[in-house]
Amino acid sequence: MKFSIKRSLLLSNLVHVTRAVSTKPQMPILTGVKIEVNQKYITLTSSNGEISIQAKIQTSSDLVILEQGVVVLPGKYLLEIIRKVDAEMIYFIRFEENVVKILADRSNFSLNTLDTDAYPLISFNNNDHMVVLDVLNLKQIIKKTTFAASLSEARMVLTGVNLDLTDNKLLAVATDSFRLAQKFIVMDKTPNIKVVIPSHNLDELNKIIEDIEENVEIHFSKTKVLFKYKNILFQTRLIEGVFPNTSSLIPTNFLTEITFHKQEIIAAIERASLFTSGEATNIIKLTLNEKGIVEIYSTHNEIGAVLEEVHPIKCSSIIPFQIAFSAKFFLEAIRAFDSPEITVHFTGEIKPFIITGEYDVNHLQLILPVRVA
Amino acid sequence: MKFSIKRSLLLSNLVHVTRAVSTKPQMPILTGVKIEVNQKYITLTSSNGEISIQAKIQTSSDLVILEQGVVVLPGKYLLEIIRKVDAEMIYFIRFEENVVKILADRSNFSLNTLDTDAYPLISFNNNDHMVVLDVLNLKQIIKKTTFAASLSEARMVLTGVNLDLTDNKLLAVATDSFRLAQKFIVMDKTPNIKVVIPSHNLDELNKIIEDIEENVEIHFSKTKVLFKYKNILFQTRLIEGVFPNTSSLIPTNFLTEITFHKQEIIAAIERASLFTSGEATNIIKLTLNEKGIVEIYSTHNEIGAVLEEVHPIKCSSIIPFQIAFSAKFFLEAIRAFDSPEITVHFTGEIKPFIITGEYDVNHLQLILPVRVA
Repeated sequence: MKFSIKRSLLLSNLVHVTRAVSTKPQMPILTGVKIEVNQKYITLTSSNGEISIQAKIQTSSDLVILEQGVVVLPGKYLLEIIRKVDAEMIYFIRFEENVVKILADRSNFSLNTLDTDAYPLISFNNNDHMVVLDVLNLKQIIKKTTFAASLSEARMVLTGVNLDLTDNKLLAVATDSFRLAQKFIVMDKTPNIKVVIPSHNLDELNKIIEDIEENVEIHFSKTKVLFKYKNILFQTRLIEGVFPNTSSLIPTNFLTEITFHKQEIIAAIERASLFTSGEATNIIKLTLNEKGIVEIYSTHNEIGAVLEEVHPIKCSSIIPFQIAFSAKFFLEAIRAFDSPEITVHFTGEIKPFIITGEYDVNHLQLILPVRVA
Repeated sequence: MKFSIKRSLLLSNLVHVTRAVSTKPQMPILTGVKIEVNQKYITLTSSNGEISIQAKIQTSSDLVILEQGVVVLPGKYLLEIIRKVDAEMIYFIRFEENVVKILADRSNFSLNTLDTDAYPLISFNNNDHMVVLDVLNLKQIIKKTTFAASLSEARMVLTGVNLDLTDNKLLAVATDSFRLAQKFIVMDKTPNIKVVIPSHNLDELNKIIEDIEENVEIHFSKTKVLFKYKNILFQTRLIEGVFPNTSSLIPTNFLTEITFHKQEIIAAIERASLFTSGEATNIIKLTLNEKGIVEIYSTHNEIGAVLEEVHPIKCSSIIPFQIAFSAKFFLEAIRAFDSPEITVHFTGEIKPFIITGEYDVNHLQLILPVRVA
């Protein structure tokens, strides 16, 4: 094995691929990145059992292959080496059976290889059902849903985001049963597919795909889903089980609908929850008074109380009422919107309410209030 | 108690004062900031037993005092409130015996007070011996020494920086007995004083004083030292005990002196210590060969080895030799220099060596090598 590669090209790919290198794997071999040097290209592969990532780099003036071969190198150290050297080109040479030399200007690394034969066979499933989505839509789906998934493994299926492809629509839903996030994309045509993808794995994918115009192919199989983005393959396992039907939970008749400046309501709620923000139940109360002014209130036995007055942009009907909910859930929901103005649609004092944003099409957040004395 | 104050003025002072508010104090009262409202000024005071800080703010168009009084408010929450509100002016009003109202535009905070009577009397000792130092020199002393102090309380006196004022010179020394950092300042005249200041407390002081031309008064008493900087008083306890006499440890005859580009030697050593940087003893070897080239080498049983070649700017005499030392200590020492070029003065293979920088006057770092097989 012998090749030379431009440092910046290798680094940008390694940063992506090493996302799937686990630091505490059950299988020590999975701390490694597998480098396969073929005649016309090299591949870098990693896997932590949850996700597998592969980058393919074609020969060019930036990658010259002199001798083929396969090797598994410790991922964390390989990345650090490539980050820290300041050479333009880097040379990889198998030196002995178990040593790869990495030469970069006046730096000379001898890196012990891991056992290539022990590396599991990873098949990137390229067949079955496929849809094409542009990156910006995919990033929207991830950003607007994953935070609402459950962190508790008590009901494993709720730790994922449900992707439901049907009727030329891709519907993404996440819920931890106290709140729900939903976003859909209208598509040209779709196969009929329902899968639940671990929300953390979608967050990892989101770190790899950039905010540029580019298409992503999504290949679905029974137990896995594969994302093809530029020269990168990103594959995640699916969560087994049936995701609850949530469409009936979403209210359609509202008591009143109040529109806020997004930044203003965020700032007010952040202040209102200052004394309770470190606590699991940082519950705040919201009141609409007869003047159409919203008051946000929270209290803490030891520290004190906060009262925030917010003048909404619009209020569909001034019906005095009070509701209490988690400030954390509300803030996370509002931050998922790109619109400068958001509307909260209330259905009653102890009924779930939803949030929408003028420019955030086909997107809603739902929050269950709490009962308070 | 009743006053109004410009938010930015209060915030900039609170950020400093709350540095001495402990989050886990033995005395709950010390989680508070004491606000004393006098006729012409207010003071903000905090103390954690180690350090005490007081800011004094005079009345002006930015501070209007309507009613005098004293109150102790929870420091952490007070700071967060002032950080998060976006009003131009903030109103403080004692509302009930134990509640202070903080009004800022549409935000209304009721903050429970702590027991004013329980707040300890803090005397800022303003008398005794005094020297005046400019901020830039004080920051130099702190930056160039504190990191070399000991973290172990086995020999308490070594956890501090020794300030020795004598013969129109202020000499600062820190050592953990494996390395030593020393910087002195020539002064017009000095009293004869020797004190040991906890190095962490100097680091805290460094966060408060800005990189501007300003003088700092330093007042020494038997158990404390007080720094007066702008409108801020910063007082720290001293460490009891006799600091060892270190002047005899510093070698004056050298085997060879090698000058490096600072950034180049830092980068080479960072790479050379990549495989051992997480470990307590990240020992690297440095060799000068007969061509006048420096080789830096380290090895790790499991991961591999690194060899870095460095071409020094200058080498006073080419005497092939080898030395081993802690990469961490070496890097910390070099980063204390402002000069673009640094010189390492070697005295022998197992003898302490010192580092100096062309533009870093009256400053040296000393490192003890280690014996390796």
